[in-house]
Amino acid sequence: MASNLTRVEHRVDRNKRYERNGHSGAVVWLTGLSGAGKSTLAAGLEGRLFDAGYAAYLLDGDNLRHGLNSDLGFSANARRENIRRAGEVAALLADAGLVCIAAFISPFAQDRANARVAAGNRPFFEIHVCAPLAICELRDPKGLYRRARRGEIPEFTGIDSPYEAPSAPDLRIHTDSLPIEACVDHLLDFVVQRLADAVR
Amino acid sequence: MASNLTRVEHRVDRNKRYERNGHSGAVVWLTGLSGAGKSTLAAGLEGRLFDAGYAAYLLDGDNLRHGLNSDLGFSANARRENIRRAGEVAALLADAGLVCIAAFISPFAQDRANARVAAGNRPFFEIHVCAPLAICELRDPKGLYRRARRGEIPEFTGIDSPYEAPSAPDLRIHTDSLPIEACVDHLLDFVVQRLADAVR
Repeated sequence: MASNLTRVEHRVDRNKRYERNGHSGAVVWLTGLSGAGKSTLAAGLEGRLFDAGYAAYLLDGDNLRHGLNSDLGFSANARRENIRRAGEVAALLADAGLVCIAAFISPFAQDRANARVAAGNRPFFEIHVCAPLAICELRDPKGLYRRARRGEIPEFTGIDSPYEAPSAPDLRIHTDSLPIEACVDHLLDFVVQRLADAVR
Repeated sequence: MASNLTRVEHRVDRNKRYERNGHSGAVVWLTGLSGAGKSTLAAGLEGRLFDAGYAAYLLDGDNLRHGLNSDLGFSANARRENIRRAGEVAALLADAGLVCIAAFISPFAQDRANARVAAGNRPFFEIHVCAPLAICELRDPKGLYRRARRGEIPEFTGIDSPYEAPSAPDLRIHTDSLPIEACVDHLLDFVVQRLADAVR
């Protein structure tokens, strides 16, 4: 019986997943300040893509921080490792054929570049979800800016830690100048078009 | 524009993924000695499930070690962290609606129990891929036993590190007494049946 174990079958070919789903696996990476609207846009995009027949999955702090990244704190190194793992998991989800929508502040350009590298030759779209800091702080959906201003959250992006805005994102969405539904429409149109253009 | 960001849409409901795929997301966890046949069985199961219309994805050392787990060495702690992360990623893939087939030696019962916990209320099937050590060492598909016997790989499972066989696996497959194709058939039948029984 030993010999028959050498006949290892191949993994499911990516072309077969493409045929099944009607699109390539891909990573849609949303970066921006806390309060810029990443989560809202990401959830809207996931729902709209899914309803349009795409295989789509939203990856964000909610499903990483309590599981895979539960061992990580909030030091500078831990935050970078958080983003590194997010990029690697997004790549696996894309490899599995899904359009992975990854929503993370991801303030450092190098970390985002690494996430693109992890995706290999899969489509990777860097989306800058953009709003002025003053607007984000006014929205403050999780009360984090208030806590950061009180000194309760050290090295908070935009307050006492830098946000390196993408210099050449694949798309920039200004959530302060368009209603959120229009922002989702715009993002959906972009992703659908770029996936249609993507090679398998 | 601040207020409209509070209308966060929900994530895609798991029932919608169930309806789309025709089955629940799940984790099929293959454990066993090196050379027991995990990779062959896993690849065979992935291909057969996919061809039968299931959303399936194979997770193993090949797609973890070079990416997500590239920061991990082979110390006892690093190996356990390797399995912890594998369990968490398998859970995410199941959450995305896929049948994740995870193939890892995963020698420690506690680590496998943790992987089951990570999967939450998704179906999780522990499959013991079983063959006598002597057979596995004879097969030695990657030449690892030879190197371990030479002392080149410390703490190699089965040689100088224990393998805690599952005491009550969901299924045990003896790859030394059945042709591999029959083993794949058996595993496929089991998974298909259990998925059909699974609550959404």
